[in-house]
Amino acid sequence: MIPSQALVALADAVGPEWLRTARANLDTFSSDGLPTHLSRPAVAVIPGSRDEVFRILRILHHFRIPFVARGAGTGLSGGALADEASVLIVLTRLNRILEIDADNRRAVVEPGVVNARLTAAVEPLGLHYAPDPSSQTACTIGGNVAENAGGPHCLKYGVTSNHILALEVALPDGGLVQLGSPGGEPWGLDLVGLFVGSEGTFGIATAITVRLTPIPSAIRTLLADFTTLRAAGEAVTSIIAGGLVPAALEIMDSNCIAIVEESIYSAGYPTDAGAVLLVELDGMDEEAVASEARQVQEMLASGGARSVQLASDPEQRERLWQGRKKAFGALGRIGSDLLVQDAVVPRSRLPDVLEQIGAIGERYQLSICNVFHAGDGNLHPNFSFDGSQPGLADRVQRASAEIMHICIEAGGTITGEHGVGSDKLQYMPLVFTADTLDMMSRVRQVFDPHDLANPGKVLPAKACQQP
Amino acid sequence: MIPSQALVALADAVGPEWLRTARANLDTFSSDGLPTHLSRPAVAVIPGSRDEVFRILRILHHFRIPFVARGAGTGLSGGALADEASVLIVLTRLNRILEIDADNRRAVVEPGVVNARLTAAVEPLGLHYAPDPSSQTACTIGGNVAENAGGPHCLKYGVTSNHILALEVALPDGGLVQLGSPGGEPWGLDLVGLFVGSEGTFGIATAITVRLTPIPSAIRTLLADFTTLRAAGEAVTSIIAGGLVPAALEIMDSNCIAIVEESIYSAGYPTDAGAVLLVELDGMDEEAVASEARQVQEMLASGGARSVQLASDPEQRERLWQGRKKAFGALGRIGSDLLVQDAVVPRSRLPDVLEQIGAIGERYQLSICNVFHAGDGNLHPNFSFDGSQPGLADRVQRASAEIMHICIEAGGTITGEHGVGSDKLQYMPLVFTADTLDMMSRVRQVFDPHDLANPGKVLPAKACQQP
Repeated sequence: MIPSQALVALADAVGPEWLRTARANLDTFSSDGLPTHLSRPAVAVIPGSRDEVFRILRILHHFRIPFVARGAGTGLSGGALADEASVLIVLTRLNRILEIDADNRRAVVEPGVVNARLTAAVEPLGLHYAPDPSSQTACTIGGNVAENAGGPHCLKYGVTSNHILALEVALPDGGLVQLGSPGGEPWGLDLVGLFVGSEGTFGIATAITVRLTPIPSAIRTLLADFTTLRAAGEAVTSIIAGGLVPAALEIMDSNCIAIVEESIYSAGYPTDAGAVLLVELDGMDEEAVASEARQVQEMLASGGARSVQLASDPEQRERLWQGRKKAFGALGRIGSDLLVQDAVVPRSRLPDVLEQIGAIGERYQLSICNVFHAGDGNLHPNFSFDGSQPGLADRVQRASAEIMHICIEAGGTITGEHGVGSDKLQYMPLVFTADTLDMMSRVRQVFDPHDLANPGKVLPAKACQQP
Repeated sequence: MIPSQALVALADAVGPEWLRTARANLDTFSSDGLPTHLSRPAVAVIPGSRDEVFRILRILHHFRIPFVARGAGTGLSGGALADEASVLIVLTRLNRILEIDADNRRAVVEPGVVNARLTAAVEPLGLHYAPDPSSQTACTIGGNVAENAGGPHCLKYGVTSNHILALEVALPDGGLVQLGSPGGEPWGLDLVGLFVGSEGTFGIATAITVRLTPIPSAIRTLLADFTTLRAAGEAVTSIIAGGLVPAALEIMDSNCIAIVEESIYSAGYPTDAGAVLLVELDGMDEEAVASEARQVQEMLASGGARSVQLASDPEQRERLWQGRKKAFGALGRIGSDLLVQDAVVPRSRLPDVLEQIGAIGERYQLSICNVFHAGDGNLHPNFSFDGSQPGLADRVQRASAEIMHICIEAGGTITGEHGVGSDKLQYMPLVFTADTLDMMSRVRQVFDPHDLANPGKVLPAKACQQP
């Protein structure tokens, strides 16, 4: 469905070896980790420089061909998928770190730089890039910008938008615009904040100026186990109510513990626990962090924790984190398909909502396993299943939608960090009024008047034509 | 210049006693604290409810009359000034706190609620509203939203935009739109972040959902004095380089110390010092904060501080802060006019830029006194002068412009927290390209297609018609 003239021009722009049209090659790009959403693009083009990105966009604009930008494809919301009418622009070759300015704590990177690679590059300078999605060894900064990605340590350090200072953006018509400035502006129209989280519907960030953060010199990691998931949720509420802001507060339920402990990633979590809670405290003063850790230890004990382990050296810490970090890997091993849901509830509603999720699992006869950023109220109920079993994928889909609805009813929202993509589109009118969605569409049109950049994602189609 | 039909309709909307047309009444509203910018509105209208705001905007839209929304008029950038062709909408009567939700740590307020009054209202619940502009006993939350206001403690807690969850907005055509949701969204199009800092050019926030923050239970305040301003600036750089994030890091130079100590606000600052540095550390753990304070004390001592005072009880703290908090009051007493400038430089450039500012003062034979948020690199060079002296205001203006240019050259920017308003308009093209300014104008037009809301502020006029 892509005109051959356009294909010729694209091949000319990037070199024929970086234009993929064969079905087998395109299959690689048909998923972004969400098994219920698959879509093969018409064509994939893999530019090797920012100039090539601009050239591609000018060609597509000329032919009015829609496009989807893709990083590592770990988004889990169907946001990075293109259909037969669209061109997929894969940005993984734009993987250069362009500048590191340790004095002013910032770096300029291309969108395809892998999150963990940036941190590795600045580590010798005592710095790191703070937002740490669980996929950080694979996902790219460009994808993080598109999704305003979170991660376990975003409880204390803030999500991606708090760490992006400036953007060079390739507009859908092939034009260039600079948003923000390297100092970051706390004033005026925040177009950087507007672009971050726009899920590829505004254009393509071709150079990203990020804030770097000092590596904390003092860290304490605690693992508490509880007989019930409710008690773990209540412990989180009480820590936050006490005013402390741990670097991370992560819960895994008994299903998750069992799966982790049966896997090669066994972390020594107690398999008879209802839930484990991982708490991390960090800072620049050894005594200060140690004192906070003692305070949390007391809170956990008085909150009914059966036991609390404290790790203060890197090896012990690594072990306590291992189960959490590898939970998705372990889950992936027990079923051919894994659906990771993503929703947010007010922290005070965590215990109730978790019980309701348990009940939904029973009703649909599905095993749901919860591993999540408890400090933010950001839930990740996971379904491991075999998609080839008749009707099963559909049942998972319905249970998942029901979970979304109870989260919204509890005063929560539809995604914490994976984005809306195509998966959550149906829920947008439950969170925003038609007028607000209309306003969003019209703001988007300023950047993309011809609806070429990832159309049909994030915003329900035709929202702007609504009365 | 306002048609009489419009005046009749406005009087009908708010009641005749809340429509001000007499010159004497309008003079009250001709300044927002910046002596070099004065402008009397054609009319001031003072609505008493959100409904009245919507009614006013529908009338003005019908007649295509531009308007300026005004809170307490403490903005210092000329942003809240209206001219003879415009209606000033004064929002101080919309001063109700509509809802306090301590569990979920949020409150809903009308725009005219005074910043410090919100904190006072939630203090019994152990909470406060964190952004604390120096004008917090007078300025309103609506004004804070418009300007994305900062304050001494924003170094650790973030500026206004980090504390606004949702907005009900009256659009310039009298329509209503809800931005965000009470949970705050870290995903999707951040229209709340876009509105915050738009300086009244998008519409009027009629209900503001703010985040509340626990009051820190442990606080340590330190005052260090240095023989030179450079040494104080370097101490700031070293504290930040060490990775600590104090709640506040404030510097006052020798001119400022002298003025404070000669005033009734004397705080006991050493008058022979080149500068004093105020450092505040806070948190929820007594031992942790005490330990961090010891670390800072050592840093200050090794950074050449002549003496370091430590306050750990509220009275001592109050005294150390007194000079800082009352500095503007003291400055106001020595000249009939006070120009407070506002610019930002990379922290590492602080010592150099401060010296350059001193040189500019000498060259223009003006006494400049610096009191500023050193942790953010946010400078406030102040000029106290007698505006009636021939040529003096002009000299102050030129010296001030020169300071702006050296800050921009140092990689800084034109405002830290007071906004662009009309005062900084001329510098916008030095920070942003024409394409970026054009993009900003077009985004603004989505909200205000007829250019009625505070036109000619923030964005250079006709930016969108530029090639």
